[in-house]
Amino acid sequence: MIGVDEALERIKQHAKPRASQMIRAADALGSVLATDIKSDIDSPPHDKALMDGYAVVASDIKSGVELSILEEVTAGDVPTLPVVSGTATRIMTGAPLPDGADAVVMVERTELVDSDETTVRINADKADLGQNIMPRGESVRTGDVVLLAGRLIRPIEMGVLAECGATEVSTYPKPSVAILSTGNELVAPETRPQAGQIRNSNGPMLEALVQRTGSKAVHLGVGRDERDELERLVRRGLEEDVLVLSGGVSAGVLDLVPEVLAANGVEQVFHKVHLKPGKPVWFGIKKDSRGDRLVFGLPGNPVASLVCFELFVRPALASLAGQAFGSIERSTARLATTHSPYSDRPTYFPARLFELDGQLQVEPLAWKGSADLRTLADANCLALFPPSDSAFAPGDAIEVYLL
Amino acid sequence: MIGVDEALERIKQHAKPRASQMIRAADALGSVLATDIKSDIDSPPHDKALMDGYAVVASDIKSGVELSILEEVTAGDVPTLPVVSGTATRIMTGAPLPDGADAVVMVERTELVDSDETTVRINADKADLGQNIMPRGESVRTGDVVLLAGRLIRPIEMGVLAECGATEVSTYPKPSVAILSTGNELVAPETRPQAGQIRNSNGPMLEALVQRTGSKAVHLGVGRDERDELERLVRRGLEEDVLVLSGGVSAGVLDLVPEVLAANGVEQVFHKVHLKPGKPVWFGIKKDSRGDRLVFGLPGNPVASLVCFELFVRPALASLAGQAFGSIERSTARLATTHSPYSDRPTYFPARLFELDGQLQVEPLAWKGSADLRTLADANCLALFPPSDSAFAPGDAIEVYLL
Repeated sequence: MIGVDEALERIKQHAKPRASQMIRAADALGSVLATDIKSDIDSPPHDKALMDGYAVVASDIKSGVELSILEEVTAGDVPTLPVVSGTATRIMTGAPLPDGADAVVMVERTELVDSDETTVRINADKADLGQNIMPRGESVRTGDVVLLAGRLIRPIEMGVLAECGATEVSTYPKPSVAILSTGNELVAPETRPQAGQIRNSNGPMLEALVQRTGSKAVHLGVGRDERDELERLVRRGLEEDVLVLSGGVSAGVLDLVPEVLAANGVEQVFHKVHLKPGKPVWFGIKKDSRGDRLVFGLPGNPVASLVCFELFVRPALASLAGQAFGSIERSTARLATTHSPYSDRPTYFPARLFELDGQLQVEPLAWKGSADLRTLADANCLALFPPSDSAFAPGDAIEVYLL
Repeated sequence: MIGVDEALERIKQHAKPRASQMIRAADALGSVLATDIKSDIDSPPHDKALMDGYAVVASDIKSGVELSILEEVTAGDVPTLPVVSGTATRIMTGAPLPDGADAVVMVERTELVDSDETTVRINADKADLGQNIMPRGESVRTGDVVLLAGRLIRPIEMGVLAECGATEVSTYPKPSVAILSTGNELVAPETRPQAGQIRNSNGPMLEALVQRTGSKAVHLGVGRDERDELERLVRRGLEEDVLVLSGGVSAGVLDLVPEVLAANGVEQVFHKVHLKPGKPVWFGIKKDSRGDRLVFGLPGNPVASLVCFELFVRPALASLAGQAFGSIERSTARLATTHSPYSDRPTYFPARLFELDGQLQVEPLAWKGSADLRTLADANCLALFPPSDSAFAPGDAIEVYLL
């Protein structure tokens, strides 16, 4: 049986970004850039006042000097007159500096001499060259690469794209993900279960996990352990970039899923991984000229389903969308308590991560086993306990996966 | 001038959750529950097999014993025959346990004796009572509160809601947020700036920040420093739960915003806060029987705008949506390098947070000042440097705000 790292390596080989496409920058939040972005302007586009005050010739400035006011320039205006020795232009924050001016004296260091505002007195001993001025192009020059290909577009990047005139950008499309829950025992959440039935909780959880990655979740509902119906649903699922099944991958007699997948051109890449919970996880691909379709078969119990989504599906979705594979948010924390359960398999245990004086601490929850979704809801991380033949002690360094 | 904590306290008084409303559970991801959720069923709904194998009477089991096979039960089936001493029912994972059975022997510990599969031989020394069985109601009992009011609905909670039959849930609606950038110098991103103009980068950034909280962003575009137009846009903005303006709150002559707000029934709560950047931030409310409308005036420069959004707007949006006020994700980290800039104001500095052996470290970026959006794009946090009259040293404990 392969380990988690080997499983990830095999998934990675098949999870390549789809062909990039041009989209409106306004729709690009959460996408990854496929090309570098260059600025089409200098930023700022002109020498710019950083304070409200007076644009002056710096060498004029000494305490008590009086200067003739030429005009007033606010942000959005263009100065019409050059500043020469003995003159000043009243200027507002963000406004372009007039020709000839090489410093701005803040308004608080000045007073108007006359009621018709033609002369200003300076109450400052000197002005430094460039004082309160941001020079043209200081932040960005025309042609500068401002964002590199591969960059994830967050709100700040939305601002940078707008600033630099990038109204259309080349990005990797987010994958679409079909979700199919399998099992005769499953009924929809709105149905009251009869004897032997349970509600499908995996489907809604997996759909929400997919939505949270920014990908499109395609709801296929419940597939019963019946060949024709499964085949119809699997075919529909294979129209999407990724098909995620839950249930139907353990050894039960009605576990038709691998057979139906094979009949539809899906090749198995691996089945079973050395971890707990989630051992029966299945992964395969269907070759496609647009990029391989990926198929994940997750175990039917909800906690194993969650663990396998976080470990295996999430990095694949990231990679398809142009992000780094393996971008699960991990951290290392100190175990806060003794943890007695141990196993010869690496075990992902629902836990709470918290911070104490700059030190990350992790405390496993009182989890009743793989179907205990309610306790899982109190978790904010999964703690990874490596194979061991003894209990874990407070202070042990433990790897955690943030939920 | 008030400090950040006092400003937050005043915002909090006015940022109360809106009236709760029933929505479909399928649409509830990211919302906060307004009432407790109780389960309408036991979970599991029956004593359930945790392994594929044979349901047996535990006291029958010793190595080599042979048992008559009564029937086969898979998940979704209902057993039709009770198991009595000397008999066994073949059972699949998740299937309901037959009456009379009190243990499940895993299939790997058994072998079929005859080709017509009527008898099974057990290769195990004993079976413990309840072995490989999850008892009815072990995870949840009918009427149990499974999720408390105030709980944020994540993917796991979506699964719990489905499991427990909660198809409609009472939640707090997410606020709607109008974004209005003000200033004569601003042009839309698709326009090439002429002399004196810059593109509106704040608007797209703020809209993306709002969208990322799950709230609805209403784009009002650019308002020029002209009374009638500002008035029309402000009135439109006040139809939403929150109006966020950027620009127009410093001391410039055309800074009409506070005046236009007052004329439209918005009362100022505070103007200016002791922090850097972002000192000119403005906050007011318009009384409304549906809940006060909140108005934030953010400084026009992008970095100050971001800082003020993270500090002041984000917790308000969380609170309006029923989450805890002040749920900005903060942490404490050790300063990785010497940091020379200091100020008598608390200063929020773009920085990179990283983790080294379970210890959070923070490194300030080479930020060129408040309009330097490009450097900000390299930040994943803001580091809070308290007022100081000397530089900060490596190893100092620094509070960080995650971006």
